[in-house]
Amino acid sequence: MAEDLLTTLSSKTKTVEIHRDKPCVIIGERINPTGRKKVMAALKEGNFDMVRKDAEDQVAAGAAVLDVNAGVPGADEPALLKQVMQTVMEVTDVPLCIDTADPDALATALALYEGKALVNSVNGEERSLSRVLPLVKEHGAAVIGLCMDDEGIPETPEARFKVAAKIIERAGKLGIPIEDVIIDPLALTMGADSNAGRIALDTIKLVVAEFGVNITMGASNISFGMPDRKYINATFIAMAIHAGLTCPITNPLVPEVSIAIKAADLVMGRDDYGMAWIQAYRQRQQSQ
Amino acid sequence: MAEDLLTTLSSKTKTVEIHRDKPCVIIGERINPTGRKKVMAALKEGNFDMVRKDAEDQVAAGAAVLDVNAGVPGADEPALLKQVMQTVMEVTDVPLCIDTADPDALATALALYEGKALVNSVNGEERSLSRVLPLVKEHGAAVIGLCMDDEGIPETPEARFKVAAKIIERAGKLGIPIEDVIIDPLALTMGADSNAGRIALDTIKLVVAEFGVNITMGASNISFGMPDRKYINATFIAMAIHAGLTCPITNPLVPEVSIAIKAADLVMGRDDYGMAWIQAYRQRQQSQ
Repeated sequence: MAEDLLTTLSSKTKTVEIHRDKPCVIIGERINPTGRKKVMAALKEGNFDMVRKDAEDQVAAGAAVLDVNAGVPGADEPALLKQVMQTVMEVTDVPLCIDTADPDALATALALYEGKALVNSVNGEERSLSRVLPLVKEHGAAVIGLCMDDEGIPETPEARFKVAAKIIERAGKLGIPIEDVIIDPLALTMGADSNAGRIALDTIKLVVAEFGVNITMGASNISFGMPDRKYINATFIAMAIHAGLTCPITNPLVPEVSIAIKAADLVMGRDDYGMAWIQAYRQRQQSQ
Repeated sequence: MAEDLLTTLSSKTKTVEIHRDKPCVIIGERINPTGRKKVMAALKEGNFDMVRKDAEDQVAAGAAVLDVNAGVPGADEPALLKQVMQTVMEVTDVPLCIDTADPDALATALALYEGKALVNSVNGEERSLSRVLPLVKEHGAAVIGLCMDDEGIPETPEARFKVAAKIIERAGKLGIPIEDVIIDPLALTMGADSNAGRIALDTIKLVVAEFGVNITMGASNISFGMPDRKYINATFIAMAIHAGLTCPITNPLVPEVSIAIKAADLVMGRDDYGMAWIQAYRQRQQSQ
């Protein structure tokens, strides 16, 4: 077993530590127009009210980092991402996770950002490795490495592990410390493959045992097409935390998911005397 | 890693298989007067209506095995346990888990039972090993081995693992097959030790890796003294299933716990096409 590593992220004024001995760090996923027509329309019109609200609400609900995505088809993504980030930084002080597939938008965003951002994401494709990792190195950022490469998303945990190993190795060659690579095992839809959850969990175990790196994951794809998705997502996230997940990308406004994360921290012995659990319970009581 | 083992239990007419590749087997815990004043009073009066109802309700809610406990202080436990078992067998056909600390009651119960029962429990104390295991062998039953011995409940997973190994070894010497020993790692109260959940989870991992045996656990002690216990118990049980738990002793009438178990089966790839998940969802819809 490798030693568990510490990743730090920061904004201008705030530092967040990610480590398997500490409570989970929730990366709020809401600031993303994908699949949200109203948000997409608002961003096109230069209206950032929803972004502001999503930022405030998620931090109030326990997000310690905010993912920012400005992927609006046809828009000038570098300019739009910059505006979204500025809006978020006006209303919160949490570190940001810069979520873009556009290298120009990423370069602009990293140049603008004061602190140590998390880049979402690089993957094992040569094109991605060669474009994203130098920017991560140049700006001293951390980066999420997705377990997919030129041949797509591998089917087995062992093959996904190899992609993770490749990303970590290539990052290391550029001088990016291993603790600044956070691996995402990729959780696909169980509707397409009943083993999708199991494969993600087993990938986490392999990566953690070998490298001790931090693990992120979006936990909501898994239940696509199933009824009562929130319960599946909550259970999956708890099991993934047991496997080694440390910084889920999720929506903290879904109570079932937030509660499961807090309960998982408690069960894993990362919440002394249940102080955080009891505090969250009181908040739920007050908001009822 | 040891190969995962198959435990079968049976009633006169029904067989239940416990294995890590199959959906969780819920052992219903409700037929137990401990801490239930009304049930205790009813049993003292020879009234078994609550027993009948607890049996029917638990099976309807998904219990595949029923724990039967008749521990009423001052009562004739062998006679009372026999009556409780007969009552349960009149209304359901699931295999029973005979839960008694009284060797005479256990001998009577095993002699009465037609099928392969689960004995709850033996532990690593010499007195327990020498009294319980011969009865288990004589009647071809399976047995739950608790990770505690003459010195109490060990604090570390490694020490609990040693107790499990001792019980398995002693059972083996008497000719009880290893697959008929189901280990309980013991989940204590987190209120007394913040690491109580973690210790149980780590014990499961060690025992499963070495022996491949099935794992049971009562998951509700852990949250004693905390608010919103049902959420903690549900999350803990999901994490324990990921660690290797296969037959939790729990109350299937608590929806949060039942849902978490079903969701965990789904996530572990033990519910093809989510058929069981969807069926349970429909049942919830109908009962609302």
